[in-house]
Amino acid sequence: MPEIKFPLILINFKAYKESSGKKGLELAKVAEKVWKETGITIAVAPQLTDLAYIAQSVEIPVFSQHVDNFSPGAHTGYVTLEAVKDAGAVGTMVNHSERRVRLDVIDDIVKRARDLKLTTLVCSNTPEVSAAVAALGPDMIAIEPPELIGTGIPVSRAKPEVVTGTLDLVKKVNPSVKVLTGAGITTGEDVEAALKLGTVGVLLASGVVKAKDWYKAIMDLVRPVLR
Amino acid sequence: MPEIKFPLILINFKAYKESSGKKGLELAKVAEKVWKETGITIAVAPQLTDLAYIAQSVEIPVFSQHVDNFSPGAHTGYVTLEAVKDAGAVGTMVNHSERRVRLDVIDDIVKRARDLKLTTLVCSNTPEVSAAVAALGPDMIAIEPPELIGTGIPVSRAKPEVVTGTLDLVKKVNPSVKVLTGAGITTGEDVEAALKLGTVGVLLASGVVKAKDWYKAIMDLVRPVLR
Amino acid sequence: MPEIKFPLILINFKAYKESSGKKGLELAKVAEKVWKETGITIAVAPQLTDLAYIAQSVEIPVFSQHVDNFSPGAHTGYVTLEAVKDAGAVGTMVNHSERRVRLDVIDDIVKRARDLKLTTLVCSNTPEVSAAVAALGPDMIAIEPPELIGTGIPVSRAKPEVVTGTLDLVKKVNPSVKVLTGAGITTGEDVEAALKLGTVGVLLASGVVKAKDWYKAIMDLVRPVLR
Amino acid sequence: MPEIKFPLILINFKAYKESSGKKGLELAKVAEKVWKETGITIAVAPQLTDLAYIAQSVEIPVFSQHVDNFSPGAHTGYVTLEAVKDAGAVGTMVNHSERRVRLDVIDDIVKRARDLKLTTLVCSNTPEVSAAVAALGPDMIAIEPPELIGTGIPVSRAKPEVVTGTLDLVKKVNPSVKVLTGAGITTGEDVEAALKLGTVGVLLASGVVKAKDWYKAIMDLVRPVLR
Repeated sequence: MPEIKFPLILINFKAYKESSGKKGLELAKVAEKVWKETGITIAVAPQLTDLAYIAQSVEIPVFSQHVDNFSPGAHTGYVTLEAVKDAGAVGTMVNHSERRVRLDVIDDIVKRARDLKLTTLVCSNTPEVSAAVAALGPDMIAIEPPELIGTGIPVSRAKPEVVTGTLDLVKKVNPSVKVLTGAGITTGEDVEAALKLGTVGVLLASGVVKAKDWYKAIMDLVRPVLR
Repeated sequence: MPEIKFPLILINFKAYKESSGKKGLELAKVAEKVWKETGITIAVAPQLTDLAYIAQSVEIPVFSQHVDNFSPGAHTGYVTLEAVKDAGAVGTMVNHSERRVRLDVIDDIVKRARDLKLTTLVCSNTPEVSAAVAALGPDMIAIEPPELIGTGIPVSRAKPEVVTGTLDLVKKVNPSVKVLTGAGITTGEDVEAALKLGTVGVLLASGVVKAKDWYKAIMDLVRPVLR
Repeated sequence: MPEIKFPLILINFKAYKESSGKKGLELAKVAEKVWKETGITIAVAPQLTDLAYIAQSVEIPVFSQHVDNFSPGAHTGYVTLEAVKDAGAVGTMVNHSERRVRLDVIDDIVKRARDLKLTTLVCSNTPEVSAAVAALGPDMIAIEPPELIGTGIPVSRAKPEVVTGTLDLVKKVNPSVKVLTGAGITTGEDVEAALKLGTVGVLLASGVVKAKDWYKAIMDLVRPVLR
Repeated sequence: MPEIKFPLILINFKAYKESSGKKGLELAKVAEKVWKETGITIAVAPQLTDLAYIAQSVEIPVFSQHVDNFSPGAHTGYVTLEAVKDAGAVGTMVNHSERRVRLDVIDDIVKRARDLKLTTLVCSNTPEVSAAVAALGPDMIAIEPPELIGTGIPVSRAKPEVVTGTLDLVKKVNPSVKVLTGAGITTGEDVEAALKLGTVGVLLASGVVKAKDWYKAIMDLVRPVLR
């Protein structure tokens, strides 16, 4: 299994046309190239339909964008944690703002993922929700005010208090949970700000996926970490 | 694109552990082998996470088990028709009894799939629901009384009137829609009965996926068609 | 039980603040007054929480805005058909564009409502979906292109072909199903146009609920019917 | 508004046929009678369709069984907090095991209910989920292991560690949140055990609703509190 080191840069492919199928594999290969050249962990979350296709072809950590709360069995059209693991992914995102999940389901998934040695990254929108998630004990939380997602305005600039408030509450409830910064990340400066606030990495999507030159966009993100 | 000929045998991998990841690819390869040896169309519906992985590796028709009603964009964790196409699949199942869908969503998906030249197979549980689906104009309907799914008791034996009732109503509402028989199919005899009732193929899952010898199980299904 | 006669004017209270609680009862009383004065059936669909409160206090037909597909039992927070009946309602709306429902659920609800002698009004958005609904055999269909709802632009003016297309297809699939016109209805002129196109009544909401003078707004709707 | 005092006994009417419509009102009247005779707060959570009907007719606190996360507006078939308030209820249950809710939705509802001065009772299934809920700051949590609901086996006897574990974690995360015991409560002994463990009341359903003599069943519950 590819190792997750911090700082972590996780690229969410969402359901963009630019990151689907063969183009998705190509983007994952570019991310892998930057990792090979710099040693910084660049992880990817491909479209669900491309999960095994990409995870079987790259050495960087691959996450599922979502998982359903079913054990293997007669559950047509649902994604199990076991399928995520068999696809070759290291873990899964849970509760992204575009795919929110029930509280009891987050609890179940976090527990079952732990048993399966899959890494969980649970998304959150406010410090209070982050504290709630921390009580469930996932590996990581990504704090992303939904109103900033896709805007290019980083939360670290627009609402730093949401990030620091999350760090404070998470530390109090469950200090072993790591926090990433999401929403509006596009530049190396944004990554730098996220790390300065005390988070251990970033979650981003359009900032890379929609960039004209993927290699340049990802290299720009890792530059402040290299210094 | 692999061509769909009738009779069609469609194997739904569901979320079974026996058909996940590398094992899923292996099962698809066995299905492909039977097609090569017999010329009978064996299609597969792999787990969502394996869709591109399998569709890029076999020459038989591959279906998605499910699709969400989104266009490409910022829809983390959802499966678009475009992603299904980019994965290399020929079409998608819709409204399986384990993953029912809203009426307006079936309508949207059928229309958008037509534009994208993707084949739609909509599942149904009663003659009335089959008639309703036929009004939306999908390529195929699979009639599956949910209470027989996974039982090994074929609908053609337990409730033939559900199949013939579906054929009658579908013919009246939209004669261009093809009908498959599902639920409880495990043997070549069941396939034979399905074709005799007037349907153009079968949809099955555990009858193959849970079989000890996949090749033998699939060969047994196609035997009556070969005679 | 209050009798439903045609033409029927059904006022949907939605979740507007103007039609909630005591104000909802007051609005229902105004509708009842118009019925008493004119003999035209004015039915109301109060907010779910007000259903019994209003149905027990007026003599006009009361509909539920929605119903869940459960039999009575341990289903906290869900609305059963039996509860709708015990509340004193004559029937239920199903599949409103703001609360769409699964195809198999519409089928179940229509069948169970028939057994309970509750009237079903299923909403639809296109002629094809209307035909699909007709195949399930509800008492009534309301055709409402969602993009016109709440606009004040009546479908009879903006898209008369959606109404006539629905009438044609419904007649073909199941001629016993009655069709209402919805979306954008605010004036007596709109009601007149709906009846001229061949539908048996109208479904409307903001046109009455948001009116300054409820009595005047409802009287204006029934005027062309009285002539 | 009727005042909530502790210990609190909250009777959930669920969707039982025994507690629907006029029978629901009758049951609420019996609960009110016990309150008048003993001074112990007996609150009720009627079926959604009966909420205003019952809340307008009794002086005891009435809760909604569920609420949707919408503001007043064009949301046909959904229950808003404002409708709950206009119906005359003092608050709402949220996230019952039969009607689980998304984490971000619980957060929104708790905040909006606070602004509207509505009391929130959020249900939970494990100590970890209770801690998560406590981080969101509702007024009350009811801890109910779903496997015991409706069994007549009280959690205080079968799994006291779930109750005490909840109390410990909730105290740590947010000591202002009150905890009720749910699941399997039927007798005064169960109420006594719940209070001894440190919770401030009970949430129950079938133990009262399905009892042959409602008055006797509720009086039996309050007896240990009276001593």
